[in-house]
Order: sequence, then C-alpha cells, then structure tokens
Amino acid sequence: MYKNPSVMAMDFEGVLIPEIWIAVAEKTGIEELYLTTREVPDYEALMNGRLRILKENNITLMDIQNVIGTVEPLNGASDFLSWARKKTQVIILTDSFYEFVKPFMPRLEYPTIFCNSLEIDEKGTITGYHLRQKDGKRKAVIALKNIGFEVISIGDSYNDATMLSTADYGILYRPSEKVVQDFPQFKVCDNYGDLRKYIEDYLSSDE
Amino acid sequence: MYKNPSVMAMDFEGVLIPEIWIAVAEKTGIEELYLTTREVPDYEALMNGRLRILKENNITLMDIQNVIGTVEPLNGASDFLSWARKKTQVIILTDSFYEFVKPFMPRLEYPTIFCNSLEIDEKGTITGYHLRQKDGKRKAVIALKNIGFEVISIGDSYNDATMLSTADYGILYRPSEKVVQDFPQFKVCDNYGDLRKYIEDYLSSDE
Repeated sequence: MYKNPSVMAMDFEGVLIPEIWIAVAEKTGIEELYLTTREVPDYEALMNGRLRILKENNITLMDIQNVIGTVEPLNGASDFLSWARKKTQVIILTDSFYEFVKPFMPRLEYPTIFCNSLEIDEKGTITGYHLRQKDGKRKAVIALKNIGFEVISIGDSYNDATMLSTADYGILYRPSEKVVQDFPQFKVCDNYGDLRKYIEDYLSSDE
Repeated sequence: MYKNPSVMAMDFEGVLIPEIWIAVAEKTGIEELYLTTREVPDYEALMNGRLRILKENNITLMDIQNVIGTVEPLNGASDFLSWARKKTQVIILTDSFYEFVKPFMPRLEYPTIFCNSLEIDEKGTITGYHLRQKDGKRKAVIALKNIGFEVISIGDSYNDATMLSTADYGILYRPSEKVVQDFPQFKVCDNYGDLRKYIEDYLSSDE
C-alpha cells in the first residue's frame, strides 16, 4: 500500500540547541531574560518584554551574537540530526530568528531551517521582530501535509503543541513536567537514542 | 521595510545532476530512454513508457541504482549548493524518486529534497510510481509562499515552467533553445557563476 513520504518537522531550541535567551540571561545576569515559552506561553508578550530589557540595558544584536557564538548544540544533537537527514527529509521549525540561529548552522552542516526575522536599527539595537505568520510552526506542518507528506514533529514546549497536534506523529523531547501533564497525548522521550528508536519504529511501520 | 525571508526552490536533474534517464540510456544502449521532459512534456506518458521499457528489458531498480552510483553531480554543482545553503534556505524540488536520488545525497551533504516514490515488486522490478500530487513543484512553491516566504526558483525544462511562474523570481538554468523560446519571461543563465550573481542581486535588492 502506498504511504506518503515523510518529513520531520522539528523544533530547534530545547531540542537541538540550548535556549538562546537563557544563555543571554546567564551571560548578562539579567534575571528577567530567563523566562522562555516554557513559562510564558504568550510569545508576543514574552518577546516584547525581552526587547524592552535589551534596550534598557543597551544590549545590541552583536552582543547577543557574541553570546550565541559561545553556545554549543546540545550533546549528541549534531549526530542525531545527521542520522535523521539520512533517514528522511528534515526541516527545522523555530520561532527564533535567522540572525540568532546563524552561528549554529556550520556546526550542524546547514540543515534547512524556517525562522522569523529581526528588525535592527543603524546602531545595531534590535527594534522589533517579524513573524512570518501567527502560529507559524503549525502552519508549516499543514503546508507539508497539503503537498503530500506524512509529518513527524518533535518539540519541547507550549509553542510546539499545535505543531505536534497537527503532525501525523508528535513527540515531546525533554519537556518540562508541566508540559507533559498538559499534553498527555504525545509520546515523550528524554534522549536522542530513544528519539531515534521512536522515529525508526514509526517509519518502518509505514511500510 | 520588512520583506519576507527567502527560500530557493530548485530543480535537481539538469540543474545539479545530469539527467538520470539519459545516463541509464547510455549505459543500456536503449534509444527510447533518451527521451526526457525536455522532449515529452507529458510526464505521465513519459514515465509509463520508461517503466514498460525497463520491464521488457528486465532492468531492475538495483540495475538503475548501479548506474546512478557512477554518475557525478554536474561540475561545480556541489560548490554552488553549499554557497546557496549559506545564503538562504534551499529545498530541491524534483519529479524524480527518492530511490533514484539517494546515491547523490552524501556527495551533496544531504540537502532537503522533495521527491516522488517508486513501487517495487519482490523481484526488484519497478512496477509503478506515485506522485505526491499533480504539478507538485508548483504546489510546493505555493505552499512556501503561503507560509510567508519569498521564493526564488531555478529549473531547466518544461516541467519547471509552472514552478518558475509561481515563484517570486524564476531562473532557467541551461535550458534548451526551445524552452527559452517558449518561456521568454524568465531570466536565463548557463553557468553557476552567473546564477550566483542573479541570486545575490535579487537577495540584496530585497533589503
């Protein structure tokens, strides 16, 4: 029986790399920057707060890129991604920004990644951000399904829930306990070995 | 002013690798296999003819994969693709099949590629094929535009025309003279250096 070919639509921060804003919080010592979508599900409120704090502290894009340059992908992430790209087609879906993810790309061998964009003024201050669309991860999954793909989706937090629900198969990777409680319908795993196994089992059950 | 981020949706055969069926024709000496979508725009008629010929000549998937294993990407293709993946997001859109393109993937560092699928019987004979959808390249471009991307598209032949028309910027790469005559609206170029320049100019004009 014919089954649609698969695409893996996976989140970036928390799944392949650490949370960028937490790294910035650690480096700058600004407590408020520790908040992520794990704690504040309203992304717009979270982002506007972050930009206000950066402005107040005169932190530029270059300062943040310098921090990001010191952050390594999660242990095993690069190997997992290489494995996945041999097994199926992979598209990383993130609410983060091209300007932030760029330093990671060479270390991950230039995967395809769909991001949002920042607005920068002439002094290098981040003055705003543009989402490609609202609920962009979910809409990307819908688009992939509409062009004939079966979609496996991996995420870790609240902003991944609609993407995981929309996918044919949704997996939570290292979610907080609260996320697990709120979304009991998703498979959960906490290491790349198990994640490979879940994906492998799912792909081979397709045949 | 905000502009949508870009995705490059590019054809595979004739743009990054030689025509697979021509390689098979050369290796097997079967004249009829020299026909491609350049000569026969009706893809379904073309494919059904090819499968009939393979069956008549007892050529299996493994025979074809052995031929493909000897075919190199076009001269400069790998460098061009690496360059493009640093500049923007790249998705290869091809009417070919996962089973055929597989040997090229390691040599091109596992780009994201959207293909169709073959149906194989227990003897390894190709008994059929499945298109993800009709006019799949164009629909993939529409899907990318709908999720907030500006799409640059590159192709060489008739089966790329609707994709190029739908994209925000369409470029014909090494097309036949007939294709150039039939589609005078597209930019045309015949080497990767010019192709880079066209893309670079287009991307920088976006800002």
